[in-house]
Parts: sequence; structure tokens; C-alpha cells
Amino acid sequence: MGRELDRRVPERALSRIRLTYRLDDGREREIAVPPGVTVFDAASWNGIAVDSTCGGHGTCRKCGVRIAAGAAPPTSLDGRAYSPDRLRDGWRLACRAVAQEDLTVEVPPLTTRPKASTVGVGRQVILRPAVQKRYVELVEPTLKDQRSDLERLLDAIDDLEPAAGLAVLRRLGPVLREADWKVTAVIVDETLIDVEPGDTTGTAYGIAFDLGTTTVVATLLDLTAGTPVAAASRLNAQQPFGADVITRISATMMDASAASRLRDLAHETLADLAAEVCAEGGVAPGHVYEIALAGNATMTQLALGLDPEPLGVAPFIPSARAIPSLHAADLGVRVHPEARAAMFPALGAYVGGDIVAGLLASGMDRDRRVRLFIDVGTNCEIVLGSAAGLTATAAPAGPAFEGAAIRCGMRAAEGAVETVRLTPDTVELGVIGDTEPRGLCGSGLVDAVAELLRTGLLDASGRLATPDEAPAALAPRLTEVNGERVFVLRGDVYLSQRDVRELQFAKAAIATGWSLLLDETGTDVADVAQVLLAGSFGSYLSPANAVRIGLVPPLALPRIVSAGNVAGEGAKLALLSLRERTGADALLQEVRYVELSDRPDFNDLFITRLAFP
Amino acid sequence: MGRELDRRVPERALSRIRLTYRLDDGREREIAVPPGVTVFDAASWNGIAVDSTCGGHGTCRKCGVRIAAGAAPPTSLDGRAYSPDRLRDGWRLACRAVAQEDLTVEVPPLTTRPKASTVGVGRQVILRPAVQKRYVELVEPTLKDQRSDLERLLDAIDDLEPAAGLAVLRRLGPVLREADWKVTAVIVDETLIDVEPGDTTGTAYGIAFDLGTTTVVATLLDLTAGTPVAAASRLNAQQPFGADVITRISATMMDASAASRLRDLAHETLADLAAEVCAEGGVAPGHVYEIALAGNATMTQLALGLDPEPLGVAPFIPSARAIPSLHAADLGVRVHPEARAAMFPALGAYVGGDIVAGLLASGMDRDRRVRLFIDVGTNCEIVLGSAAGLTATAAPAGPAFEGAAIRCGMRAAEGAVETVRLTPDTVELGVIGDTEPRGLCGSGLVDAVAELLRTGLLDASGRLATPDEAPAALAPRLTEVNGERVFVLRGDVYLSQRDVRELQFAKAAIATGWSLLLDETGTDVADVAQVLLAGSFGSYLSPANAVRIGLVPPLALPRIVSAGNVAGEGAKLALLSLRERTGADALLQEVRYVELSDRPDFNDLFITRLAFP
Repeated sequence: MGRELDRRVPERALSRIRLTYRLDDGREREIAVPPGVTVFDAASWNGIAVDSTCGGHGTCRKCGVRIAAGAAPPTSLDGRAYSPDRLRDGWRLACRAVAQEDLTVEVPPLTTRPKASTVGVGRQVILRPAVQKRYVELVEPTLKDQRSDLERLLDAIDDLEPAAGLAVLRRLGPVLREADWKVTAVIVDETLIDVEPGDTTGTAYGIAFDLGTTTVVATLLDLTAGTPVAAASRLNAQQPFGADVITRISATMMDASAASRLRDLAHETLADLAAEVCAEGGVAPGHVYEIALAGNATMTQLALGLDPEPLGVAPFIPSARAIPSLHAADLGVRVHPEARAAMFPALGAYVGGDIVAGLLASGMDRDRRVRLFIDVGTNCEIVLGSAAGLTATAAPAGPAFEGAAIRCGMRAAEGAVETVRLTPDTVELGVIGDTEPRGLCGSGLVDAVAELLRTGLLDASGRLATPDEAPAALAPRLTEVNGERVFVLRGDVYLSQRDVRELQFAKAAIATGWSLLLDETGTDVADVAQVLLAGSFGSYLSPANAVRIGLVPPLALPRIVSAGNVAGEGAKLALLSLRERTGADALLQEVRYVELSDRPDFNDLFITRLAFP
Repeated sequence: MGRELDRRVPERALSRIRLTYRLDDGREREIAVPPGVTVFDAASWNGIAVDSTCGGHGTCRKCGVRIAAGAAPPTSLDGRAYSPDRLRDGWRLACRAVAQEDLTVEVPPLTTRPKASTVGVGRQVILRPAVQKRYVELVEPTLKDQRSDLERLLDAIDDLEPAAGLAVLRRLGPVLREADWKVTAVIVDETLIDVEPGDTTGTAYGIAFDLGTTTVVATLLDLTAGTPVAAASRLNAQQPFGADVITRISATMMDASAASRLRDLAHETLADLAAEVCAEGGVAPGHVYEIALAGNATMTQLALGLDPEPLGVAPFIPSARAIPSLHAADLGVRVHPEARAAMFPALGAYVGGDIVAGLLASGMDRDRRVRLFIDVGTNCEIVLGSAAGLTATAAPAGPAFEGAAIRCGMRAAEGAVETVRLTPDTVELGVIGDTEPRGLCGSGLVDAVAELLRTGLLDASGRLATPDEAPAALAPRLTEVNGERVFVLRGDVYLSQRDVRELQFAKAAIATGWSLLLDETGTDVADVAQVLLAGSFGSYLSPANAVRIGLVPPLALPRIVSAGNVAGEGAKLALLSLRERTGADALLQEVRYVELSDRPDFNDLFITRLAFP
């Protein structure tokens, strides 16, 4: 330790407090949260249901709990909701009660049973989307009751107090009168965005986007049921400007018009996907009231038309960590004209909203076990979580995992070798699309190296065997191309000595990252309960081979979990639960980012990590 | 009494609580306010200065006061600002302390002396505009300090915590770097709307609009000094659609395209005036960061593109009482592209934002005396204020005061007779523009009738004398036109018997209005301390003649005050003081509107009021 902590991180971020919820069935649930969260949010984040219809805005007054031990000062809202006796007895609105110390909280029996969905890494989420609809039948105005149209509508909605903008006011008067005063109010978070004639409460959709540098994925969700309706993915149309974030940032620095073209291409990709999932799901785009988006800092800034240059040059500065109050239209997505957009905040230039979404989806912030989250890619983000909080860093792994800088490397597309298995006399290949192999993608590269290691055709230093060191059946595959030693997989597809070196550099960067994070937090590697491999590449990686090449710590295999597309799952979570979304903002306060590359022992450790275990 | 109160009005609106401020110079100020306002707002509204730089948003923590008697429960913010000992001793942030009962408040000595301006009816206003600028010199980012651009900026502003939208984020990165990290943040209310290179804190403007049915007035204000820079007025370009609100509403009902044309004409009028005052004041439109607008409900809804039809047909319903978060661009005003617009809320279809602005400017809500506010016009609004609160009504006076339905009637334009004085042998006329008279405007009409009454040429019933009843010198003026008795003022300009009847109807409607309001509130006419005549017409009215014809109660003349264009003054107030603006919203809660026309005694009283006193 001994290094100065990031000045921005409040001391409290490093410790947690303990909340004990006593449920009405007699069970107790103990959870650890950072100080400063509300009793309601802490419960929501841990799947503990507390009554509420407003979703935690302090307007429905249904989330009463009793603080049985510990103190939470009453707020002015409590003063209006409870008598002095009840206040003294510990009754509080859970959504206003800020936990600053250990508390025991009695939760009354639920009056309604909330719907729940399973999202992310086995996360049970209580369905409380920001999008809410309320059907009301209004009393017609008379000379004795001259309330304005807006007051009449809002008075009839007893649990929410939304604000109304000009667009909805323009529709309000005509719709109320045409619909004979029977309308459905459409509310997103704290804003009334529309009034629809009749009862449309059964119809509410959202689209979750994972805006990747390479691939963009959209999932259309039915927000009334919490279920996916349609999904689609396509390549990010920004591809012609470069394969990775740095080349796209460079493009904007060399050509003044590139930034706006990149923005338009991002919008086009998102808009096309939105149209596609709506068509596939048979949903009118006008019934999509909110979108959520997770992307890395560069993709996010480009899509919003924010100059990305400061992200790409030292000291790597984002425009903002959180971007509030966006409309879907700001991202070029043509759904309901007043639809809102929730965008995941970034921790920094290299730990973006995609990582924050992934942490949320994998519950990294609400688990007391020691867990290691590794998003494998050109820039590899690593987060260590424990009861003490979250510590993050980024490791520059380079493009090996994307198939770049590898002689026969390619993307994980048709013809790419994605699995490799060696027997004493043959090589078994898994090829995407079951065709003849055209090249080697990241997971195939890792597999090939791991298998060569296992069979002794590669030594711990990374040297490929000579033909005479190999079993007779495999020896002919150890040949030379342009004077370089290679191992032929099939036909023209081979792994070269230099490819092995590239992989060694990449995995050493990652291994140095998590080693130093463990060191930085005083954690023993044996205490790591779980390693989550995230990102599209991470999902395809064989845990056994990841251990074999030393990419991840040497743990029992069941502890190494392919988490899948956790960024996309995080975006879904944000649509399904407003409280989960606020959890993403809380995460920003709780994660400590450490820059490892300027540590004096970084280089020494990196060099020792180049060798295979 | 005995009538059912408007259901919407909370009981508390009818009573007030007493706040006693102990100032550091030993003086005490006692004021009466409705329960529920903050100690800070109550002080601001009464010109009592309490330290604050954030203007009451709970962010600067400089507005500490001690509650010496009575109780105001501490908020969570107090808990962070004060030790438990200080809390027990009564220390509170004044902007968070809600007064629900009589309180004695000790105000510490001021650390800065706030600027003040005199606006409205002798109101001393502490200068705290919603527009605030902060000049900051930021530390450049480094690898050890990778805060985002937005965090870096906001961290450097210690007393405000604005939110930032996409537009300002797009400018933020480039401006910070071009300006070498020395910039001025432009904040309106709670939103960061721009960052400007260098120190521009000395430059901040706003435009106050009085959007009248006939005339629109704009005043450009220097918000750093609280002083007007330029003013201009022009006819509302909607005139071709009709002279009054009802004909303009009718136009939209008969022609589907009329509403959008009326909106565009309102925008054009406002935009032209904005350009004119900026040019006259030598101010760049981009330095105007906020506009404020007071208008009646119809003008307001037309300008915002809200269907006015429900305002014009029973039961007369506005779209909304308050319109939040508007941009100047929503009103077609081209100043700073992100400039905000503050629009006065309406109490109802016939007591609009112009009246609310006028009440604010004349301090009707913070005066314990009995005062009568009368806005004379086609629709005459009457408000009775006292320590018990405000009671409002509207009286349909008809168009006589606008010169319509009067034989030789005309607007108060060049050639209009505006004053009339009779001597035994001649008639002295004051004519606008000192030209030959072309007609009679409202104040000339009142003057003519009052003078004829005084000289006995008109009796209390409203009958014009015959020539033989008149002094010889004036007798020839009492002639007939088309078989109708008239009194010739000069040349073709005369007052007819039917004109007198029109005025009788108009003044009877108004007198019935204030009589019933006095009756409704149990107020004796002798207790009325002041009558404020508002509106452009009210300002030109001779108090003596207003009494003579019975338009206002028979009070000593100094008690009858021409208040001038109080709606425009209210708009200025809103620009100069954020707290005054919130006072307008509080007014909505405090005013009780009573519909008098359906009272059974209305007609009887109206008929007795037709006679002159």
C-alpha cells in the first residue's frame, strides 16, 4: 500500500455498513452497502421487496418501514407521513431514510406482490421500470371545478408527481376532450411524456442497447412483464473509421468533419437496430418510451457528439462521468418522440459505462465475497470487489484478442477457428460456421497456445518446439514460414512464434493488472471466490485454458465464470428497475480507480508474468 | 358568505403565520406569510437580507439563522451543516427551514452586502437573479487527477450545484482547452447553460416581456446591476385576428391553421422586440440568458402553441396553471440559444399570469393592510388582499374602456381625447399627440362622464341634460346625432347617451365585483387602505373621476394609486430575484378565486350599481 489514494474518493467508499432486514415471514436478510444509500435502494438492490408504487420518489408514501435498531433521522416528508408517536417508534419512509450506520429494518407485509425478473448474472430484479402508466377517468370540468387540464390529470394520479413539458401540454387538452376524459398518462422517471386516449396500461416497451466498438446489440423489452420481445445485433457502422477506439479518436483529430460523421453513423446503427427489433417484435415504435445504453466512454461521447480527443491523449479525460436527462432523439433513435434515454455513467476514459453496466449486472457491488471482474479486450478492464468495496484498473492488453497483430488472426466471424484440441496425432478444430478455417480468432488463439503448452510443444518461456521435439504425427506441423517457426493448424492457418509472443504480452498485461490489484488491496489470491470473464471475447474463452496460460488466477474451474454480455444485461436492468439505475450512479462513488502502469514494480512484475505458469 | 369554498384551496391559504426577524442592528421586523414558505423566502420577499450565494437551493450553506422561538424541524441538510449542539440551539439553513407556525428568527450579520433594486410599486428587491456567473481558473488535468471536464468545473464552483445538459457538454471540452482552463460558467437557476472563455462575470442580461393582447412591452435588464438598459413596445402582431382574447380564440375555432399563425405572430412580436432592445442597449443577444414573460392566459397559451379553445368556452379551463422549464426558443425569442424563459403562472382562464405578476409587483401578498387591486380592461380582474390572504374575481366589463362600442371611441393613440375638463363656458381637452381630436379613449370617456356629472349635465341615472337645462355657453353642445342625444366635445367628436350607458354597464360590473368581494370576505369599505389601479388603462385614469363615477370605492384620493404597468414590473422582478419568482408560485396557492356571476344577489347589486353615486 502506501500510495496516495485518489483524492476524489471519499473515505467512506472504502468501508460498508450492515443493514439487517426483518421480513414478515420471520426471515432476516443481512446486506452490506456503502453508507449514504437509502434503506429502500439497499433493499431493492438485494431483491428485498418493500411496497412502493412511485419507485422511490417520495410521492406514494407506501414504503414505510420501522427502524428497530440504529438511527435514521426523520425527514420533513416523514413528518408529514407519520405522527410524532410513530416517528419516535422508528417509522420512516424507506425511500427517504438514508443509512449512515448499521441498521435493523422491519419490513411490513407487502400489500401487492411485485413482479420480478432474472437478469444479468443470476440477478433477481424487482420490476419497477422508470416508465410507468396510469389509467385515469377524470371528472369533467364545470364552473365549480375549473382546475386546469394538467392539475385535473395529476390530481387523479395519487402516487406520482411528474413534471410536464411543453410537448405533452400541447397534446393534453385535445386528447382529454377527444378521449372523453379517459386517458392513460405515460410517465418516465419524474416526467409526464404523453397522454394516450383510453386504457393503454398494458403496452409499454423499452430498448436496451449495448453500444460496442465492434458490435451493437439491441434488446426490445416488454416493460409491463419484464421480458425480452426481440433482439438484434449488427456491426457498428463506424467500422470504416477504424477497428478500435484509438483509431476512431485519431480520425476526429485529423479530419474536422469526422466527429459529426461518426456521430451520424452511431445514430444510424442505433436507429436501424431499433427499427429492426420493433418490426420483429410487432411493436409500434411510438410505444417505446425509454431506451438504455451501455457503451465505453469513446463510443458514448462519439454518439452524443462530444469531442473524443481528450479521451485519446494523456491524461485521458472524459467530458463528464454521468450524462443526465437525455432523449432517445439525442442518440438518433426514432421511437416515441419524447422517449427518454438512460446512459450508463463512466468511471473514467478507460473504465466506461459498459463496465459500470457489467458490474451492476453481475452484482459486483452487493456481494461480500472477493470477486474479480475481467473484461478481456484491447483495453482490458479489471475490477476487484469485496466487502470493502470495489477497486478498478485498466490494462493495455493490445489487439491480440481481437485477432489483430496475429499472422492468421481474424475476428470471431465465419471461418474463424474458435476452439483447438490436440491429440497425440491430430488437431481438432472448432470453426465458426462449420466451414473450412480462414483464420484464428481470440479464443482459438488462447486454445491453441494452451493446448501446445499442455502437450509440451510450447515451453513455459513461450518457445515453440522444433519438429524433432514433437510426436511424429504432429512434427510436420512445426515448420517455418518466412523463416519463422510456426505450428500449422490446417491448410494456410497457422500459429507463429511471434503470435505466441503477442499473446504472452497481452496475458502478461492482464495478469499484472489483477496481481497488482490483489496486492494493492492486500488480498490473497486464494481468497478470490469467483472470476467473472466479461465482454464478448471473455464469454467464449475456455476457463481451463485461461488458467493454463495464466490469464486468470489458478482457481478451481467452477470459480471461473463466463459472464456473457454483461454490458447489455446492465442496460436491460436499467430499463427494468429505476433503483438499479440509481445503483449505477452509486457505483461511481464507490469504485476506486488505481493507475497501475506508473507503479515502480509494474515492469518487473510484467516481465515475470510473460512466462506461462 | 355561506358559499362553498373552492375545493382546491387548502384551508391554510386562508390564514397566515407571523415571523419575527431579529436583525443584527437590534431592529425587529414582523411579517405575515402563508404557512409552508421557507424562512429564507419569507425574508427575501420582505427585503430582509440573509446571506446566500446559491439563491436558496441548499447548496451554498451560507444562510444559517437561529430559530429563537417556535419550531422548525431540522432537515437532513441541517444535519450535515450543523453539530448536534448547534441544531439543538436552533440553528437552521434558512432556505430549508419551512415555517409552519409563528417563529422568531435571529439573522446573523451579513458577510456581504447584497445589491437591491426598486421595482414595481415601491418594492425594494434584493438582487439575486436566476442567472449567475462564476469565473474559475481550473487546475489542468494530469494522470493523477483524471476528473472529467464537468466535474473539474463543478468542483471549482463551491456554492452552486447545477445540472448540465448535452448542449453545454458539447462546448465544454473545446472551450476549457482553448481558454487555457480559465472560464466563466453561466448558470440559470439550477442548470449550467454555457461556459465562456475568460472572465465574463460583468456581462449578464435578461429581457422582461409584458405580453398584452393589444401592446407588448420589452425591457432589457442588466442583471449584474439590476438596472434597465433599454425598453421598447409595439402592437401585438396578432391584432388582425381580433382586438380581444375572445375573437382570437374564436379564430382558432373556425380555422385550423389560425392557432399556428397566431403562435408565429406572437413569436415574431417578441423576437422583434428582443432584437430592438438589444440593438438599443448595445447588447449582444447571446448575452441575454433568460427572459421572463407575463401575459394573460390566452396570450400565454397562444404563444406556447397550446390550444386556447377551452379558455374561451364554459367552463373556461386553462391547459396548466404553471408552465415549467421553458426555453426562450420555445417563445421564438432568439437570444442565447440555451436561454431559459420564466413564465408567470395563471390562476385560471380569466386571472392570468399578467395579474399574478401584477400582484407580485405591487406586493399584494406581503402587506397586512386591506388593499384592492383592480386591473381595468375588457375583462376586469379584481383582487382583495388583507392579512387573511387574497381573494380574486373577474368582472366582465366589456370593451368600453378600450374605446370599442363607443360612438367616437378609439384606442389610446394619437388624436385620442384622454382628458376632459368642463368650465361654465368651455370644454378643455387633452389630446394624445397634441393634435386635433379624432376620438375618445377610455380615460377620456371616464373624464367626460365625470365632468358632466360634476357640472350637472348628467344626472345620477345617467340621463344627459337637454339644451335648456344647460348653461348657455354649453347648451349648443347638447344636440342630437341620428336622433340620439349627444354632448359634442369638439368637431365630430362627441359623447352619446348610449356611450354613457355603455360606461354605466362597465363600471357597474366592476363595482359589483369589488362590492361582492368585500361582502364575501366580510370587509367594510372604510377599511380599504388602498386601491391600486393597474393595467395600461388603469394608469391613465384620474383617481378623482374614478371615484366620481363609482368605478372605485369612495376613498380619500391619496388612497387611490395608479400602479402603472404592474405586469411588466412583475416580469422584471422575476428576472432580478429568483425568490420573488417562487413567490409567484406561492401566490397561486394563496389566492382564493370566487366566481361572483352565479351569486343570486349579483343581478340586484349590478342594477343598483348602474346609477352614478
